[in-house]
Order: sequence, then structure tokens, then C-alpha cells
Amino acid sequence: MKLLKTLAPAAALIALPTLGLAQDDGPAPGVNASTDTVFIFNSLLFLIGGFLVMWMAAGFAMLEAGLVRSKNVAMQCMKNVVLFSLAAIFYYLIGYNLMYPLGTWSVDGVISGVWGPGVLEAVGVTADAADDYGYASTGSDFFFQLMFCATTASIVSGTLAERIKLWPFLVFVVILTSIIYPLQASWKWGGGFLDEAGFLDFAGSTVVHSVGGWAALTGAIILGPRLGRYVDGRVVPFPGSNLTLATLGTFILWLGWFGFNGGSQLAMGTVGDVADVSRIFANTNTAAAGGSVAALIMTQIMYKKPDLTMVLNGALAGLVSITAEPLTPTLGAATIIGAIGGIIVVFAVPMLDKLKIDDVVGAIPVHLVCGIWGTIAVAFTNSDASFATQLYGIVVVGIFTIIASGVVWFVLKLVMGGIRVSEEEEITGLDMGELGMEAYPEFSKG
Amino acid sequence: MKLLKTLAPAAALIALPTLGLAQDDGPAPGVNASTDTVFIFNSLLFLIGGFLVMWMAAGFAMLEAGLVRSKNVAMQCMKNVVLFSLAAIFYYLIGYNLMYPLGTWSVDGVISGVWGPGVLEAVGVTADAADDYGYASTGSDFFFQLMFCATTASIVSGTLAERIKLWPFLVFVVILTSIIYPLQASWKWGGGFLDEAGFLDFAGSTVVHSVGGWAALTGAIILGPRLGRYVDGRVVPFPGSNLTLATLGTFILWLGWFGFNGGSQLAMGTVGDVADVSRIFANTNTAAAGGSVAALIMTQIMYKKPDLTMVLNGALAGLVSITAEPLTPTLGAATIIGAIGGIIVVFAVPMLDKLKIDDVVGAIPVHLVCGIWGTIAVAFTNSDASFATQLYGIVVVGIFTIIASGVVWFVLKLVMGGIRVSEEEEITGLDMGELGMEAYPEFSKG
Amino acid sequence: MKLLKTLAPAAALIALPTLGLAQDDGPAPGVNASTDTVFIFNSLLFLIGGFLVMWMAAGFAMLEAGLVRSKNVAMQCMKNVVLFSLAAIFYYLIGYNLMYPLGTWSVDGVISGVWGPGVLEAVGVTADAADDYGYASTGSDFFFQLMFCATTASIVSGTLAERIKLWPFLVFVVILTSIIYPLQASWKWGGGFLDEAGFLDFAGSTVVHSVGGWAALTGAIILGPRLGRYVDGRVVPFPGSNLTLATLGTFILWLGWFGFNGGSQLAMGTVGDVADVSRIFANTNTAAAGGSVAALIMTQIMYKKPDLTMVLNGALAGLVSITAEPLTPTLGAATIIGAIGGIIVVFAVPMLDKLKIDDVVGAIPVHLVCGIWGTIAVAFTNSDASFATQLYGIVVVGIFTIIASGVVWFVLKLVMGGIRVSEEEEITGLDMGELGMEAYPEFSKG
Repeated sequence: MKLLKTLAPAAALIALPTLGLAQDDGPAPGVNASTDTVFIFNSLLFLIGGFLVMWMAAGFAMLEAGLVRSKNVAMQCMKNVVLFSLAAIFYYLIGYNLMYPLGTWSVDGVISGVWGPGVLEAVGVTADAADDYGYASTGSDFFFQLMFCATTASIVSGTLAERIKLWPFLVFVVILTSIIYPLQASWKWGGGFLDEAGFLDFAGSTVVHSVGGWAALTGAIILGPRLGRYVDGRVVPFPGSNLTLATLGTFILWLGWFGFNGGSQLAMGTVGDVADVSRIFANTNTAAAGGSVAALIMTQIMYKKPDLTMVLNGALAGLVSITAEPLTPTLGAATIIGAIGGIIVVFAVPMLDKLKIDDVVGAIPVHLVCGIWGTIAVAFTNSDASFATQLYGIVVVGIFTIIASGVVWFVLKLVMGGIRVSEEEEITGLDMGELGMEAYPEFSKG
Repeated sequence: MKLLKTLAPAAALIALPTLGLAQDDGPAPGVNASTDTVFIFNSLLFLIGGFLVMWMAAGFAMLEAGLVRSKNVAMQCMKNVVLFSLAAIFYYLIGYNLMYPLGTWSVDGVISGVWGPGVLEAVGVTADAADDYGYASTGSDFFFQLMFCATTASIVSGTLAERIKLWPFLVFVVILTSIIYPLQASWKWGGGFLDEAGFLDFAGSTVVHSVGGWAALTGAIILGPRLGRYVDGRVVPFPGSNLTLATLGTFILWLGWFGFNGGSQLAMGTVGDVADVSRIFANTNTAAAGGSVAALIMTQIMYKKPDLTMVLNGALAGLVSITAEPLTPTLGAATIIGAIGGIIVVFAVPMLDKLKIDDVVGAIPVHLVCGIWGTIAVAFTNSDASFATQLYGIVVVGIFTIIASGVVWFVLKLVMGGIRVSEEEEITGLDMGELGMEAYPEFSKG
Repeated sequence: MKLLKTLAPAAALIALPTLGLAQDDGPAPGVNASTDTVFIFNSLLFLIGGFLVMWMAAGFAMLEAGLVRSKNVAMQCMKNVVLFSLAAIFYYLIGYNLMYPLGTWSVDGVISGVWGPGVLEAVGVTADAADDYGYASTGSDFFFQLMFCATTASIVSGTLAERIKLWPFLVFVVILTSIIYPLQASWKWGGGFLDEAGFLDFAGSTVVHSVGGWAALTGAIILGPRLGRYVDGRVVPFPGSNLTLATLGTFILWLGWFGFNGGSQLAMGTVGDVADVSRIFANTNTAAAGGSVAALIMTQIMYKKPDLTMVLNGALAGLVSITAEPLTPTLGAATIIGAIGGIIVVFAVPMLDKLKIDDVVGAIPVHLVCGIWGTIAVAFTNSDASFATQLYGIVVVGIFTIIASGVVWFVLKLVMGGIRVSEEEEITGLDMGELGMEAYPEFSKG
């Protein structure tokens, strides 16, 4: 059963050319690399891709720690370390089996999957495993997929910073990573109905980024804005405490994204696959570049002064925008797709503020709005995609995530005595309030 | 002779299945990857593993710079950069040859090894080198092994921070990396008597982490606690100056550990090896997760407030705990092994303080105590291990390292006019005292 | 035509053994890895090398943000993010085609190249592409080469920090990355006249580092020193605001350099190539170690106090010094080459100050002076190199870069109303002056 279970996604990927992320995932005919060499290359892609995406957890931590005020920095670090840890544990316990259920996706399959015995092959398998386990080692696939689940949770923490209580947030993370993310991901990447409908999302503009974004948006609305943020119709700026950390975080995310998008080719063992991975690396990079330059130019034009945090978010916006289809665009198209993402962010940030939705780090514009944009943009460069189907996928995943996370937030509010810290604690800062420590205890505040 | 010398470890590894880190290190029968492809994959594993472990040097630097007070930060950066540099040079000059002596381990072999001519194969070797040099390029093996030696030195610097003089510390690093570490490492990884006795330590919970920990402990006892740390039976908290840096350092170490443990498989050129490396990546990750979550829960229960530095050290504790055997555990067992490590740290930190052993960053609980725990834990998941032999290895390495480093610390104390800065310098801070510069010169201190 | 164009560099590399970076770049006779396996390994080297060099952009950002005063930190982050983005876009639009023009290098070829249609192969090429596209995927080659171009621009930003206006600097970056860098790089790496003359520069001590250094030097002279830097014949020290960031940046650069030098082998698909890449990793590491230790000892001797920024620049100096030839030296020779680099920096920094050339981060000593030293040093360990030819290459590239960038700086001065911020803005800091924001808004300045 373990074999069957772990075989399921691999077999599905090989059987259905339109299913997976990859455009072609087995050795092409005429390829003369041996089966085990292909297996090793594919597994290696997952391992390298996986550690690069793991590194994105550090990127989110630094970005968010840099963009909150210093009185909430230690808490933001805490949340990022622990959410990644919880994602690792609960995606293993529940999520992975739920996302890639036994055989094809079905209620039956899900239930078998949820209680499936584990996710790794035995120690020291022989070369026959290349046949048994499909195109890559299950351990490497699990490692890689886990990191995507954790990324979804990282997105939420930034938006809700500076006011959400630690424990309700962590419980939300557990439910997000064990159920909400894997369930909707199975609809596309587990071979579910969105996949069958022809919805395309190469590395997760919708499946990862907009899911994180919807969960963050729902949370932000339920939680309300930070004290003093919107006063007499004015937006009071709360500048981030450490822009070098925010810059570092952006560079880390940029680096990690090569693993995020490149690894989503799911295969590297043929000439065609490695050439595709190369295209993806180049396109991912140029989309980020397009996003940051577009945000620079836009803020220069609109505010007469270029805005560093907008430029950083512009780069991230470019990355999210190219994530749904990093393979088919030319370099030029990728640059433009990213640049449009960068422009979107510059407009979406103040728009959210007008709606009094308080997103501390700009995660909703970056991950949700650009996630939607990127998913739509697939239809411009990939002839297999239709606008209607892309919209269908966006809407289905959106409605599901809003409802699911909305219910969770409300239940948490009821059973945990509120999800928001007290006014006093918010003013003092969550670091002293909830943790009893400061991130920068020796530096006097201005 | 060079050939013989460099062949030694490879040959030994191939000859003795129970010797090396890897459970199986040659191409398995029936594998159809060509010999040179296997050679390339294995070398590539060392190169990727090596640069990931090199990155851990930055992790230690950031962790320690974040946990010392701001007046000692520049010095802590200095120590970390230079200790890594000295390790690189002296492991090359002496350590590597001492660790993998000519032929099997012997006094004769050691002496030949110490004065061996070098460690790299010639430029542009032909494909025959795959036969001549064994299973991977010597250069890649050297690069990888060097990083482990440097890690040992990194562990020491944190414990002794804020009071040890620069130059005596650096001399200690030279002796640690050229003699103490390589000599005891040869007992296990060079095919010495601990290896022959059946002692198991996959990636170095004992060989690397507890050796660093014992050296740190010996130094901390000889050096004494920081001024004002223990007053009237109370422990005065000296909070770290920059918890975002400490968080970043933890994430860096977490990332680097995939290279540390995964690379210690020593081979990636067969289906079985790459599947094992994948298992190791997944287990390493989940052990860290278990450690951090356990520390979170423990500090919440014990102190009513979760403690960020404990959570960070909990993650590191999980990593150290899984290092002696990251392959055989299931994901569940790995999580538990890591979680126990996280719990250990929460208890060991105040215990050390009760003994008035002043460990600035918690390196002794993390690397020594959890190194011991991890080494013992091997026997729970690997049927080749026996508790008695594991304890034997722990005790032998411990006694050797305590005596060797104790002698070195005492000699340094005598010949270098003390190893501790003056009281005045300690109060002013080592940055102004020894370096004449500050890490954050513009920020006024609270 | 695209095929011809993209084939050009590959074909040239295969045809001319003395041309490329690599000493041997095709499968050696008797190698039994299949053609496509070699292709995959080579492409993978470019991808890994490329993401490591991309990471250097973050290293430069952190190093420079740590070495400027806090009032200019946000601007320095801005410049580093945007310069990397502009390099990505303009190297794609113009630079890559200019550097590797159609067929052999010629005015004709350049013009065809400049207007060439693009740089990536099609999506999902078949295994035949291994024959069509040469030794690695064009996408991976482009990705890798792009990062070198971006590095050149990163070097300039540090020297000119704290006084140059944002927009003129960015325009300079556009011209540097689209024309100046690629044009001179084609002389060596595009198979141009310097290559034909036998000039050797493995990974770019001259082609990358000294070009960045010359451009920085020219800019620094035209721009003049910062206000208050040289008063009454005295050098007023302006200490960096955050030495942990500078340390982090150095570690990042150190890590990225394995990709920089190792990837410049251009091939990993044979036993000989992977062994060479391994040698390069080991030599690169030990050269950095030599440089930092040498700088430590020199500053201890000369100033009685070791200087952290000198030690950091010493490590970088070692890295630059070994870049022109990281393959042929022994570990011992590499250590010495790096150590001489570290000594050079300790002398070159005060010398520049005597000339009242104000280099904020020491980029000219590190990248220009040690770039020259490293290029000369090739002749000590590589018997194919002659001192005369190395000097010829240094001088040709130097004169070209000085003239080209000098002209650009002057034109920018004329057409953009000066390239330097106003005195008032410089005193206030570029962050508030040009961006209207601060990097550390909450920390009061001492």
C-alpha cells in the first residue's frame, strides 16, 4: 500500500501529460541516458529545488522582520520559525497524503491517504526502485512539495503581523498546512478536477501564492487594522524598522524562487527537461527584474521619489506573476509579465489602504493580486490555456480558501478567546507583551 | 604516494561496508549508470554538500553576533571569519592528512600523512581517474571534509564569546583544526579503532558537534563566567543584541545542515544512494521542526511565555540530535528524536547556569548535550548500533577532547599571558578594547 | 539564425582549446557517459553556478549597506536591487548578443548579434538538441553569463556610495551592462583578439573585477570625495554603520564565488571536468582564507589592532586574486596568491586615501588592484600564460574601460544636470534626500 500510495502521483504524472506541472516528465524517446541516471537527475532537481525553497522561509522571516516596527520583530521571527516547523510536521502527518491520495483523487482516496503510513521509500533501495518508484525518489518529492506548503503559511504571517496572537495564528497554520492547502492543491497537482478541467498553474501562482493571499486577506478583514493605522480618513505610515533586512529577505526569496519555479519542471533527466529548467531560471530572473524596475519607475512618476519597499515588493510581484507559467514565455514576455506585476503592486497597496484592509508587508498585493494576474497571464503565452479555465480555477480556489479560512478564523476567535492581542499589548508591542523579550534590546527607540 | 594516500579513504570505504558514513557507497550490482557518471554524481554531492556546510560558517557568525551584546559584536564577527580561514589552511596543511592517513590508520600512517604532499588530483585528469581515485574526486572530498572541521571550531567561539582574547582563541582554533579534530575523527571516519569497534556516527553528532562542545565546555570552565553574570546566586540575563540576526543564523544553519547530513551519505550515483540522500534531507528537516516546536511548547509551559532564543536553539538541537543517524529513522522517529533534543536544551541551559558555566549562545546544550543524545539515539533506529558501543565512542571522544583541549587552554594561559581580556576591556567591550571599532557605531545604546 | 547565433560560443569553445575559460570542455575520448548526460551535467553546472553568483548580488548589497553610514543605507539597498534588475534586462536586450556575436567576433558579427532575436532554445527540445546546441543548454549559459555582467555593476555601486545621484548611476549601469562589459568581455570570452593573443583570465579577475574597478575608479575621480572626508590633509574616518551586515555580505560573496569560479570551468560532464571543478572549489576557498588571515596579521602588525573591515576585504581580495586562475595552482600556491591579495588591500586602501580618491567600501583595492594582481599571477602557475600577454590584456581592458566609462560619466554630468547630490542632501543623507525614507527609522543616531 505504501508503494501504491507513493506511486500514485508519479504514475499519474507519467500517465497524464497535461496533469502535472511539467510539460514533459519522462525520458523522451531516443534518449540514451540510463533509467537510473534519469532517476538521479530528477531526484537531485527536487533536492536542490527543495533546499532553495526552504531558504525562502528565511526570506519571508527577514522581509517581515524588516517591515514591522521594532517592538514586534522578535514575535515576527518567532512566528516564521515556528510556522515553518509546524508546516513540516503537519504536511507530513496529514497534508502530503491528502494532496496525493491513493490512486486517483476521490473521497475514498483522500481517506486512505490521510491515514497512509508514511511517505518515504525504504533505506538503501536497489536500482529496481527506479522502476518501482517512478521518475524520482519519493523522499525528494516529499521534501520538495513540503516546502511549497510551508511557503503558503509564510505568506499569511506578514499580513497579520503586529496584532495577531501567537497561538491562534499557529493553530491556523496547522489547519492551513494540513488541510486547506493540500486539499485545494490536490485539485490541480494531485490530479483532481481542476487539473482535469485544463487549469494550468505551473508552480503555483494560484495554488500557493493566491491561497496564502486569500487566507491572509480573510484574516486581515476579520482581525481589523492595527491601532492608529487609519485615523480620520488618513493612512498613518508605520515605516518598517529595518530596510536592510527587508532587502536581504527579498534577495533570499529571489534566489529561492529558482528552486520554486525551476524545480516545478519536476524532471531534469533529459536534454529537453534541463533545457526547460534553464528557460525557467532565466524567465524567473527577468520577471523579478521587470517587476522591480517597473515599481521604481512608477513610484518615481507618481510620488516623485522612488520607494524602496515598493521596489522590493515589485521584484516579488514579478516573481509571483511568472510563477503560473515560467516556461513558455520568451525572455521579453517574461519581463513584461513581471513588470505588470510590479505596476499592479504600486496601485494595489494604496487601494487596500483605502478599503482599510491593513496588510503590514504588502503580501496581499504581491501574492494574491499578482497571483491572480500571473494565472491569467498563462493564457497569453501558453496555447494550452484558456482564459475561461484560468478564471474558473482562480475563482474556485478563491471561494474555497475564503470560506475555509474564514470559518477557521471565526472558530479560533470563539474558542481561543479572541485572535487579537489586547490594546495595551499592541501598543507596547508583541515582543514584550507576549514574549517578554526584545529583538534589539540595546538600541534606544527614536 | 599521493595516489596511495588519496586512495586510502576511498578504498577503505569501499572495502568496509560498516566503516564509512554511507551505508552503501559503491554502485550496486545491476546499476547501469556508467562508472564516470557515478563518479560525477558523487563528486557533485560533495561539492553541493560542501558549499552548504561552508554556508553554516555564516550561520554561526550571525547566530553568535546576534546573541552577544552589541559591544562585542564586531569581535564575534572577526572570530568567525578568521576561525573559518584558519581551519581552511590548517586542515589542508595538517588535518586532512592526519585524518585520512596513508593506508590504514597507524602511527606510521599518521606520520606519512602529516607530511603528505597534498590533497588534490592533477588538473584535467582523464576518465581513468574514476578508477584511480575511487568513487569521487579527491578535491571534492577534501572540500567537503574541510567544512566539517571548520564547523567544529565555529561551535567553540560562541560559548567563549565576550571575554576570551582574540589571539589565544585563534591559536586554539589552529590546534583544534589541525590536530584535535582530525585525530579523533580518524578513529571513526579514517577507519580507526572506534570504527572497527562498530561505533556509528553518520554525520558527526559526536565526531563534530560534541567535540566542539567538549572543547567549548573545557574552555568555559577554565575561562570562567562573564563579569556580573552570576551575582548573589542569581543569574543576570544578558540579552542578545540582535535577535533577527540570531534567527537568520538559525535558518542558515538549518539550510546548511542538508549538506552536512545529506552529503555524509558520501554517494549519490545510484538509485539507492540518491533515495537515501532524499530520506536524509526529509529527516533532517523534520528533526529541526520537532526541536523548535518542542522548545516552544516547553517554554510556554514552564515560563508561560515562549522564548525565541530557546526556539532557535531548539531547532539547532533537533538538527544536532539527528546528525548521528539521519538515514534510518522514519519521519516520525526523526521528529521525535529532534523534539527530545529541543526539550533537552530547555533544561540544559538553566542547568549550566546553575553550575556557573557561562555559555553565551547555548552551544554546550545544543552541540554537546544533544550531540550525546543523538549518538545514543542511533541505537533506537539502526539495528547495527549497540548502546554500549555508542556510549564507548562518546566517552572515548569526550575524555580525549577534554584532556587535549584542557592542556591547550592551560598552555595558552601560561605562554600568552592569560586567555581572558582585562576587566576594563570586558566592561568596555571587546570591540573597542581589542579592535578599536564598533559594529553599530551610530546607534546609541539603551 | 538563432541556432547559429547560440551555437557560436559553444562551437568556438569546442573548436579552440585555448579559447574558453575551460581547459577542456568536451567529453574526453574514452568517456562513456552518454552525450545527453554530459549535456545535462554541463547545464546543471551553469544553473548551480548561476544561482550562486546571483546570490553575490545580495552579498554586495549587504556588504555595502553595512559599510555606508546609516543615513545612506536605504539608497544603497535600492541601488543594489535595481542595478541587478537593470543588468538582467539590458544584458538580455543587448549585452549577451554583443558578447557572443554571430560566428566569430567581427563588426559584422556584433551588429547581427546586437539585433539577434533572443537567447533561449525552444520549449521542450528533444535529445537532438544536445547535438544542435552544443555542450549545454543556451538558457543555462545565458543565465550564468548574465550573473557575471551583473557582478561588474555591483562593484561600481560601493565605491560611489553616499554621494552619487540615483538616476545617473542607473543610466551608467545600463550602459555598463549593455555595452562596456559585454564588448570587452567578447575580446576574451567571445573569442576576440585578446583570446587569440593568448590572454588568460579563467573566471574574470580582469574581465569582470578590474572592469568594475576601473569604472568605479573613473567615477570616483570625476565625482570627488565625500564632504568632510579629507580635511587639512587628514583622512576623517567614516565608520560603516553595521559591521554584521558587512560580515554577512562577505560570507555571501565567499559562498557565491564557488559558483563564480567553479562554474567557469564551463563543463562538469566528464571525470576530468568534475575533478577540475573540485580543485577550483578548494582553491577558491583557500585563497579567501589566505587573504583574510594575511590582512589580519598585517593590520595587527601595522596598527597593533586587527581591523575587521580589512579582514573582510582581505577575504574578498583573496577571492578576486584567485579568479584569473583558480585551477592550476596547488592549494599552497592558491593560499599564497590569496594572501598576497590580502596584503595588497591593506596597503592600497590608505594609498587611495592619500590620492584623495574616496572609495567608500574599498572596492578599488579589492576588485581593481587585486584583479590586476590575480591576472598577473596566472603566469606563476599556468605554463600557457606569459607575463607580457597578461599585462597586455590588463592594459587594453584598462584603457578601454577608463575611456569608455569616463566618457559616459562626463556625458551624464552634462545631460543630467550633474551626477552628484547637493551638499545639503549629502549632509542629510541620500535616504531622506532622494528617497524620503530611512533604513532604520526607529533607532536614534549617536
